[in-house]
Amino acid sequence: MKKEDRSIGIFDSGMGGLTIAKEIKRLLPHESLIYYGDSKHLPYGDKSKEVIIEYSEKITNFLLENNCKAIVIACNTATANALKEVKALANEKNVPVYDVISPVAEKVAFTFNQNVGVLATKSTITSHIYKKSIQKLNKHINVYELAAPLLVPVIEEGFNNHEISSIVLKTYLTNKKLQNIDSLILGCTHYPLIINEVRNFYLNKIQVIDSPLIVASYIKQDLENKKLNSQIQNPSYEFYVSDLTPTFSKLAKKFFGSCIHLRVVDIFNKIRI
Amino acid sequence: MKKEDRSIGIFDSGMGGLTIAKEIKRLLPHESLIYYGDSKHLPYGDKSKEVIIEYSEKITNFLLENNCKAIVIACNTATANALKEVKALANEKNVPVYDVISPVAEKVAFTFNQNVGVLATKSTITSHIYKKSIQKLNKHINVYELAAPLLVPVIEEGFNNHEISSIVLKTYLTNKKLQNIDSLILGCTHYPLIINEVRNFYLNKIQVIDSPLIVASYIKQDLENKKLNSQIQNPSYEFYVSDLTPTFSKLAKKFFGSCIHLRVVDIFNKIRI
Repeated sequence: MKKEDRSIGIFDSGMGGLTIAKEIKRLLPHESLIYYGDSKHLPYGDKSKEVIIEYSEKITNFLLENNCKAIVIACNTATANALKEVKALANEKNVPVYDVISPVAEKVAFTFNQNVGVLATKSTITSHIYKKSIQKLNKHINVYELAAPLLVPVIEEGFNNHEISSIVLKTYLTNKKLQNIDSLILGCTHYPLIINEVRNFYLNKIQVIDSPLIVASYIKQDLENKKLNSQIQNPSYEFYVSDLTPTFSKLAKKFFGSCIHLRVVDIFNKIRI
Repeated sequence: MKKEDRSIGIFDSGMGGLTIAKEIKRLLPHESLIYYGDSKHLPYGDKSKEVIIEYSEKITNFLLENNCKAIVIACNTATANALKEVKALANEKNVPVYDVISPVAEKVAFTFNQNVGVLATKSTITSHIYKKSIQKLNKHINVYELAAPLLVPVIEEGFNNHEISSIVLKTYLTNKKLQNIDSLILGCTHYPLIINEVRNFYLNKIQVIDSPLIVASYIKQDLENKKLNSQIQNPSYEFYVSDLTPTFSKLAKKFFGSCIHLRVVDIFNKIRI
């Protein structure tokens, strides 16, 4: 197999990263993908840094063993806590690592307005990774961060576009921390499913940033720059999870947009099925 | 140490079981308690049976190694999935096992009305453990079960007694599955924090069952029957978790009703701190 025809490896704590995988598939239709969702340990959002590093390293090794040419950390929490460690492992094999935060931070730092809001899980907000990443590039931008931990379960339970998501979003978006923003980053891979509700809440007066599009575009450009982009006509898609319940299959469909076959590989117990 | 003065071991997937521990402390003020919250792996509600058994067995061994005289599975999901396995381990050391479902099923089967509703996590509902346990004792009782997975995050995020809990409860309680009930079991250790909201929703026309009171009363009676009840004046309380974040300390206070010191013991990685 040619070097550039190997798969892109993508991982998340669960199924949310499939919103990124879906956008990568749309923008890069000739790329094979291997997705790993750590459904046994989700959500990462409430876990400590040490635990998140431990899990992320194990998944990275799994993707590298499967000969991936690039790794995408499609999880804000894992990026915030374990990016350095994942890069260290991948760099040994000369494999580039992409994350869901840096491309967005870059875009925001050089394109958008002065007062940027960030809505994300508790762990991502606690790490201040968006604030740090944006202000490292442009220190004149004010970044206002708010943890919105209820949004993930609301979306996973199918209560988006519902009275419940409406009240929950209202509760978060009217928080005084977000009072003066002129653009908003939805800093969690689940949130693309409520992007229209957020846009409607703001009556399009606030720029709500489409992270999956920015991330997938960035990866496309960088793979081309590195001459690592594939042109194969029949790319393959493989989806693995560390634990399988009917919920995950349902979520996979919701996030990826079509039915997919999930295979269980518990890389944590060294039992391969 | 006298046999009856050893601690009662209590475990849950996280902090919710502290609502049971709190009631046990209230009704049995001379008992020492050891609590283990598997915060590294919570929530169990969405995990598969095999994984829940694996975690429950490890925690049971930890409590037995710490010389507990009785074990309380203060977690509906662990009871539904791993009761048999926990009992098998404890019985080897002649240690009785209590759970949060059997005492409630017994009470409902012989005391309450004919149409009983159950609100619980997805995993507890899927197991049909309440329905099976109640109908085994009294087959004339109709049991109507509904999964309410949003309630745990709503409570953990402090949105009980809030517009959010109100809409979420309304959504679940008006579900047609619960249309004809005359009593309701709150089948999750988190739910005692919303029992008053549920009672208010029903304007006291439905009997909402106080599970922690029933469970703690049952344990008190059974320990006395077995002459395993302690009379010591200064019982000790120890609280362990498998992972610690500020959230857990906050939740511990919320569920136990007072500040407690949480110690990290990750029995899963064999690292003891």
